[in-house]
Amino acid sequence: MPTNRDRRDRLADAGLALLAREGARGVTYRALEGEAGLPAGTTSNYYRSRDELLGDLARRVFERLAPDQDSPADEEPPHADGTVTSYMLALHERLEDRADVYRALLELRLESARRPEVRRRVETVLRDGFEADVAFHESRGLPGGRRAVRLLHLAMAGLMLERLTVSAAMADTDVEQTVAELVECLVPEPG
Amino acid sequence: MPTNRDRRDRLADAGLALLAREGARGVTYRALEGEAGLPAGTTSNYYRSRDELLGDLARRVFERLAPDQDSPADEEPPHADGTVTSYMLALHERLEDRADVYRALLELRLESARRPEVRRRVETVLRDGFEADVAFHESRGLPGGRRAVRLLHLAMAGLMLERLTVSAAMADTDVEQTVAELVECLVPEPG
Repeated sequence: MPTNRDRRDRLADAGLALLAREGARGVTYRALEGEAGLPAGTTSNYYRSRDELLGDLARRVFERLAPDQDSPADEEPPHADGTVTSYMLALHERLEDRADVYRALLELRLESARRPEVRRRVETVLRDGFEADVAFHESRGLPGGRRAVRLLHLAMAGLMLERLTVSAAMADTDVEQTVAELVECLVPEPG
Repeated sequence: MPTNRDRRDRLADAGLALLAREGARGVTYRALEGEAGLPAGTTSNYYRSRDELLGDLARRVFERLAPDQDSPADEEPPHADGTVTSYMLALHERLEDRADVYRALLELRLESARRPEVRRRVETVLRDGFEADVAFHESRGLPGGRRAVRLLHLAMAGLMLERLTVSAAMADTDVEQTVAELVECLVPEPG
């Protein structure tokens, strides 16, 4: 029997699918319940408002984009030799594999620019994610600290925007080579 | 008396405002004519399809984001000392000033991921824009060539996404300093 958490995640996953397919305006309670195959009225059992729902979708994005701890294939991705480049290549691969989830995050970002209450919630999730990345970087003894993580974040966000929407700067360019070039430029050599 | 071109640009500007405010699903012919204050039916005099309209909105984005050639303030922006950093700071300032136009471009990018016909049109405009940037960079004798312009494009896109939606990596960080750091890392010193 599904737990409350399972049902909430099923609603949230339906919300992410709708965001990617229809944009933020497509996320109505009715569409959500239809997409999730759950009875009408389910959504309001889990969320007090549409803003709360959209904030929870940001939380769910990060669960869906995280490396899958249970999967041996993800625990040791082909690039994971412990260098910054290997982590960025693994990240890139994960985001390409879960393109719709990443596109849903872009929709949540744009909806945040329109709705202060959504922004407040999405911002909390994104900042926690950034702090977790800084902590991970430092815990692995990788060089450059917060500044390097920040610059990499910006560049990888631009790269994924190109890869998952329209490619202009990346046209006819090898993506793995570009990831390696970005790391080489933005992260100092380990001393 | 307004020319055809004036009217088309008025429709396109209304489309960009709608994109920023409502997302791609908000761009209907009726909403467009209402926003532009033009009679019902005007849109179909200028565009044969909604996809053609959305492609033309991409063209209009680049007109709206270009430095204004007629304005002395823009001809000599405060940062324009001819270095890459000065051009990137001027670009950043222009995009912040025209935040809704840039957000409309992000909406067009996401709609492109959903609709191949929109993608084809938006891609043409974005690639022409990138080629123009490479040509500008080289014509000014700036260092690093196409590769430097590409890496800068990616990083500046990530930075603007943070600045104009939700700030995570950029929280509590000086934007002008970050622009300077990106250029310092991504563009080789002029030899």
